[in-house]
Amino acid sequence: MAAEKTLQDLFLDTLKDIYYAERQIAKTLPKMAKAATAPELKAGFEKHLEETHGHVERLEQIFELLGKAPRGKTCDAILGIIEEGKDIIEEFKGTVALDAGLVSSAQAVEHYEMARYGTLKTWAQQLGMKEAVQLLDATLQEEIATDKTLSQLATSQVNQKAA
Amino acid sequence: MAAEKTLQDLFLDTLKDIYYAERQIAKTLPKMAKAATAPELKAGFEKHLEETHGHVERLEQIFELLGKAPRGKTCDAILGIIEEGKDIIEEFKGTVALDAGLVSSAQAVEHYEMARYGTLKTWAQQLGMKEAVQLLDATLQEEIATDKTLSQLATSQVNQKAA
Repeated sequence: MAAEKTLQDLFLDTLKDIYYAERQIAKTLPKMAKAATAPELKAGFEKHLEETHGHVERLEQIFELLGKAPRGKTCDAILGIIEEGKDIIEEFKGTVALDAGLVSSAQAVEHYEMARYGTLKTWAQQLGMKEAVQLLDATLQEEIATDKTLSQLATSQVNQKAA
Repeated sequence: MAAEKTLQDLFLDTLKDIYYAERQIAKTLPKMAKAATAPELKAGFEKHLEETHGHVERLEQIFELLGKAPRGKTCDAILGIIEEGKDIIEEFKGTVALDAGLVSSAQAVEHYEMARYGTLKTWAQQLGMKEAVQLLDATLQEEIATDKTLSQLATSQVNQKAA
């Protein structure tokens, strides 16, 4: 009989989920940067793409700490969030509201990541994985900062232009 | 020629998105309450179901302010998030880690809602829709509070039991 599943299994499952998600996000950000009209938003997406590569690397370090090969697991949540973002680009392309829609989509992505990294971090704490806690927290803080930057960009210029 | 789309169109689109999402969440929460083993978590999901009915009503009030009939629009994001939650229930049913998985799923839902309500609130501010701002903020604060309660429940008992 297989051993009962525990928090460690859940941790590995969710690690695979966010690993898949990060790589999908890395594929999507260049499209968002290309679609954005405000130079600050374009630059913001490009900067976050660089960060995302770092997030993927940190996840690979955690897989290594667990003695596992890095593997993704299809994440329906991020696929749905990205799909909605694509719809907005299609529907609002060429309009004054496009950038506001892009910010909205990006913040949905950020919030998904904040949820997953927040959860993984507290699980790593419970499991006594100190190094993983630090790696997860470093990414979590970058996601929170990106979300704040997007909010500021929205209220300082993007929304006004869209109205 | 149709008028160019603006922030008002984006606002209505996203309102339909979250209206659909809230009603999906209202269908899902009873299943999560049923699956939960910790009485506090069960009670938490039941309380949030009550709140969710209130969120749906507030959204209907905003549709009314816009002079529109309340209508949802398929939200791929929430469908993906809920699908992942179902997978966790199936995979971890009967294990010590189930409640930790349920909290994780619920926090992904809360974060999606926080992203959408945060965006809608700043758009309503930009559009000068004072009453809508208040309604959206009331729900946003409840989502933030629910997310905090879930975090506390996770670190105070659920994760320990799962480890």
